[in-house]
Amino acid sequence: MVNIVQFGVGNVGNELVNQVGELNSAEIRYVSIGNSKISKIDIRGLDLGGGDFQNLAAPGTTADWSKVFDKVGDLDNVVMVDVTAQDWIEPHLEALSRGWKIVLANKKPLVKEWSVSKVLFNNNDVRFEATVGAGLPIIQTLKGIIESGDEVKEINGAFSGTLGYITTELHEGKSFSEALASAIKKGYTEPNPLDDLDGMDVARKALILSRLIGREENMEDLKVNGLVNRRKYENLETREFIKISKDLDGEFKVKVKDVEDSNKVLKFVAHIGKKTLINLSSIEAKSSLGQLKGVNNLAEITTSHYSDDPLVISGPGAGKEVTANGVLRDILSFVQ
Amino acid sequence: MVNIVQFGVGNVGNELVNQVGELNSAEIRYVSIGNSKISKIDIRGLDLGGGDFQNLAAPGTTADWSKVFDKVGDLDNVVMVDVTAQDWIEPHLEALSRGWKIVLANKKPLVKEWSVSKVLFNNNDVRFEATVGAGLPIIQTLKGIIESGDEVKEINGAFSGTLGYITTELHEGKSFSEALASAIKKGYTEPNPLDDLDGMDVARKALILSRLIGREENMEDLKVNGLVNRRKYENLETREFIKISKDLDGEFKVKVKDVEDSNKVLKFVAHIGKKTLINLSSIEAKSSLGQLKGVNNLAEITTSHYSDDPLVISGPGAGKEVTANGVLRDILSFVQ
Repeated sequence: MVNIVQFGVGNVGNELVNQVGELNSAEIRYVSIGNSKISKIDIRGLDLGGGDFQNLAAPGTTADWSKVFDKVGDLDNVVMVDVTAQDWIEPHLEALSRGWKIVLANKKPLVKEWSVSKVLFNNNDVRFEATVGAGLPIIQTLKGIIESGDEVKEINGAFSGTLGYITTELHEGKSFSEALASAIKKGYTEPNPLDDLDGMDVARKALILSRLIGREENMEDLKVNGLVNRRKYENLETREFIKISKDLDGEFKVKVKDVEDSNKVLKFVAHIGKKTLINLSSIEAKSSLGQLKGVNNLAEITTSHYSDDPLVISGPGAGKEVTANGVLRDILSFVQ
Repeated sequence: MVNIVQFGVGNVGNELVNQVGELNSAEIRYVSIGNSKISKIDIRGLDLGGGDFQNLAAPGTTADWSKVFDKVGDLDNVVMVDVTAQDWIEPHLEALSRGWKIVLANKKPLVKEWSVSKVLFNNNDVRFEATVGAGLPIIQTLKGIIESGDEVKEINGAFSGTLGYITTELHEGKSFSEALASAIKKGYTEPNPLDDLDGMDVARKALILSRLIGREENMEDLKVNGLVNRRKYENLETREFIKISKDLDGEFKVKVKDVEDSNKVLKFVAHIGKKTLINLSSIEAKSSLGQLKGVNNLAEITTSHYSDDPLVISGPGAGKEVTANGVLRDILSFVQ
């Protein structure tokens, strides 16, 4: 049996509790749940059936992660689940020093300086499937390939549903500003769309994959070109930026025409090869990546064994259900 | 550490030994290797570095599986690896009764009567990734989905490189007999091409997947329509059949035209839904399956969580390197 200490009760965190509840497994028990500010704790096991985790300001709650750790004490078989978006790694280091396991949907602890984050890589006590492609089995597959002695030569992937949607719409004839407005309307973007357009979320995923396959890279080693140049628009209100995005329509129209003339399509791609590059790329329309449509994610993995044709994994790469399911599968991998 | 007892020293068996050798892991040791007729055994560990397993008729060899079992005795942490094409299950039952683990590339033990084969399913001591799609992580992904409480609604897959190649060629304008001749020339077919064309190899893979996701089906519950009607040509010599295959050209030409007129393509598909159907199907040209080309395999997995768009895994689904690698990853899953 594993005892879960969960940080994060947002969309994914709530869905995870639901999925654990539905699984109704005697092998999984919650002992703490909360966020960085407040947690509910009972080392004899929390009753989450009635959703009482949502009412955290109750007796038995505590205010920061170190107090959670103190209360959990030296319980055995603890899995710390981080489904926050916190920029931290201290609880993870403490968890490992206590012999706990770790499951992450949060990318931040994995993309700090290599000297800091490296303890989370090549560590059998740490899983992070849901950080890249949500529940798609990309990390697990890469780990299996590496452990079996096959060599990963190259990964090419589309890891942003938002940018996948926008580039698909561009080829359907929409202007950039129309595609952006449509993505916002459908709820595909962050509150500030520049947080998608700058490519940094994709860069974090690429860095995780690059480190996973053995490269001791740091963020500054990656070559990242966002779909738009963030610095140019940084000082604008989001509403102003959306208005001004029309100014980019002409430029994107030319790009789309240019690549279509040579049977290619624009995709916002993470390329992990000799270098790690994240940018808008022109991709053969007939390749798996070129055929990808809309918000779906995709990873093409080329290895010594998969050398002529890559191994390809694709499908929904975001959403609370598939993300929580990726986390749950990681948790289950720690259940004997 | 695990001790390997390997049955099968064909293409995949030999490649597996090479890959284990290259991995050079202290966690894996061969104690027996051979086929159903003869095996080389040393319970202190065989030296396979010089490929001496190929010279089996040597002192210390034995003639059938039960003698192998006797010699291996009550060694701990044994993994029996079956990379033969034998139609057997007796060694597997004996292996389980001794507490051994099992890794299969051989489909046959998994497709016997459900009452006989069922012990190999939902059994944490048995792995069989390489039986469907070679090294593609299809079985592992399905297991993870099921264990985490997600429900598999439907699997649609292309699991025959040979039939994938032929149907692709048909849409490239080749006649059926030309496509068949080309597949034979490229070495994609069994010695008797009817063994591919009758769809039974795909049916075995479909039955494995169907049973894996919890259906207690037998082969006779499956609806299998081969690419050609085997019974009609059963009595012909292979050479005669190839000649006579021209008679089918007209029929296939009509089929190809019909589906292309409605933006579809012909694919030889295993459909595991409410029923399990294996047949030549007309598939939306724009779907993942419709876009698949040549010998590659593909599985589209629709679940409760992956309901709008399926999770898709594709890539080379045959070949000694990727098949042996699938077996090796299964073996490694038993190494703690």
